[in-house]
Amino acid sequence: MFYKRTVQYYETDKMGVVHHSNYIRWFEEARTYYMKNNGVDYNTVEKECGVMMPVIAVDCRYKQGAVYNEEVSIETEVSFFNGIKLVFNYKVYNSEKTLLVDGSSTHCFVDMSFKPVRLKKTNPDLYSRLNLLLKEDA
Amino acid sequence: MFYKRTVQYYETDKMGVVHHSNYIRWFEEARTYYMKNNGVDYNTVEKECGVMMPVIAVDCRYKQGAVYNEEVSIETEVSFFNGIKLVFNYKVYNSEKTLLVDGSSTHCFVDMSFKPVRLKKTNPDLYSRLNLLLKEDA
Amino acid sequence: MFYKRTVQYYETDKMGVVHHSNYIRWFEEARTYYMKNNGVDYNTVEKECGVMMPVIAVDCRYKQGAVYNEEVSIETEVSFFNGIKLVFNYKVYNSEKTLLVDGSSTHCFVDMSFKPVRLKKTNPDLYSRLNLLLKEDA
Amino acid sequence: MFYKRTVQYYETDKMGVVHHSNYIRWFEEARTYYMKNNGVDYNTVEKECGVMMPVIAVDCRYKQGAVYNEEVSIETEVSFFNGIKLVFNYKVYNSEKTLLVDGSSTHCFVDMSFKPVRLKKTNPDLYSRLNLLLKEDA
Repeated sequence: MFYKRTVQYYETDKMGVVHHSNYIRWFEEARTYYMKNNGVDYNTVEKECGVMMPVIAVDCRYKQGAVYNEEVSIETEVSFFNGIKLVFNYKVYNSEKTLLVDGSSTHCFVDMSFKPVRLKKTNPDLYSRLNLLLKEDA
Repeated sequence: MFYKRTVQYYETDKMGVVHHSNYIRWFEEARTYYMKNNGVDYNTVEKECGVMMPVIAVDCRYKQGAVYNEEVSIETEVSFFNGIKLVFNYKVYNSEKTLLVDGSSTHCFVDMSFKPVRLKKTNPDLYSRLNLLLKEDA
Repeated sequence: MFYKRTVQYYETDKMGVVHHSNYIRWFEEARTYYMKNNGVDYNTVEKECGVMMPVIAVDCRYKQGAVYNEEVSIETEVSFFNGIKLVFNYKVYNSEKTLLVDGSSTHCFVDMSFKPVRLKKTNPDLYSRLNLLLKEDA
Repeated sequence: MFYKRTVQYYETDKMGVVHHSNYIRWFEEARTYYMKNNGVDYNTVEKECGVMMPVIAVDCRYKQGAVYNEEVSIETEVSFFNGIKLVFNYKVYNSEKTLLVDGSSTHCFVDMSFKPVRLKKTNPDLYSRLNLLLKEDA
């Protein structure tokens, strides 16, 4: 499952490549796209399930800088899920399939008052759908 | 009333100067600083008065690009206020007092449900304090 | 010529809608897309013609906030061009064709040392291709 | 060595707290401030030494979200340096000294053509000054 997007001018910095903070934003774009295309629209998770998935950790390794105007492809996978914690892995490639960046984001689950929830108990349907992501990829 | 800040690396783009969208964010920083130092903390406006000041227009003219690591000074003035609409003017200078950018932002007043309010009627105290900004500068 | 994109979480602010500075960035995305699809790839302009098009003015009027996850469409037109100055107009719509934001950006033309150039003389081919944009839309 | 700054509106997202990508940018602000105040102005490193310090990895753990308008303090330390690689650690606190976020960034050293350099050999003076940061903190 690849998410594609074009590098924008405002994402570059004076080094001439994409500023390292922007890949963390691309991870979010890729994660949202991946979830929506696998039956778990994040907007619906917030609006209908009343659950938010705040990021509790990210890490990112930069191998080569993406440059202005190139199309990058981001691969997203779920590497861990237990109803309390969810981990996504990302790989960013350029059009020649060179790996530019890889990283991960770890999420917990809270209600709209930021109180932690155990999905298996509070939102069993959402739990099942997220669990399918894990089964497919891990 | 000058707000000072240092140009960050992540604000530059591959042209080697600050990306034009960032000055709009600096206007916000300068406006917040100006208001706080003139008796109208914007955070309090939202939290205690229940009023938000969404931006309904901005304009910006770029004369010279700010460069990485330089300290810029932003002057803020209120040029119009009638309880329904509020206009701020901004001037961004570098350390040699060269004018880099000038612009303005226009704001309306809404309650937390985005319903327009007439401050003179709904929030007379806030109206008075904002009116002082106009009297001082215009 | 519409450019479409989905509103990202990182583009919203605590007011629950897209932060006003981000529309300026969307204008850039839409302009780049419009140019590329009308025979003037901006990346090529910089790399092959040695010409940059810095923004010398922007203005933006906000009618309604874009919200997380919705798809917006941005219409771009060229309203002025004379080889020294170029003006783009933008209209941002949501999926129900409601106009959310309109604005414009004004550009000049400089060489890689930021020295102004008169395209008609220095880059007649680029001049002709940009002039076609004007003829098509204005 | 603490770097202080106020949380801006444009840094929040619809969750009502600072978007997680922005802490990576704060790390950069804190690192630049720390270096400048310890005798190694990064701007000078690029301009006079001809050396850039691209980020090759970041990681970040989010414990509590920073909120609009609060003042945060960021502590920076150097935990590793050998002339080829440099690691900074960061801790972000709110005004009540609660730890909100911690993380690190790893940098390499390259010349203006992105070719890796060994500072001890190519820039012994810069090597010595950076080594002092390590001695002070690690």
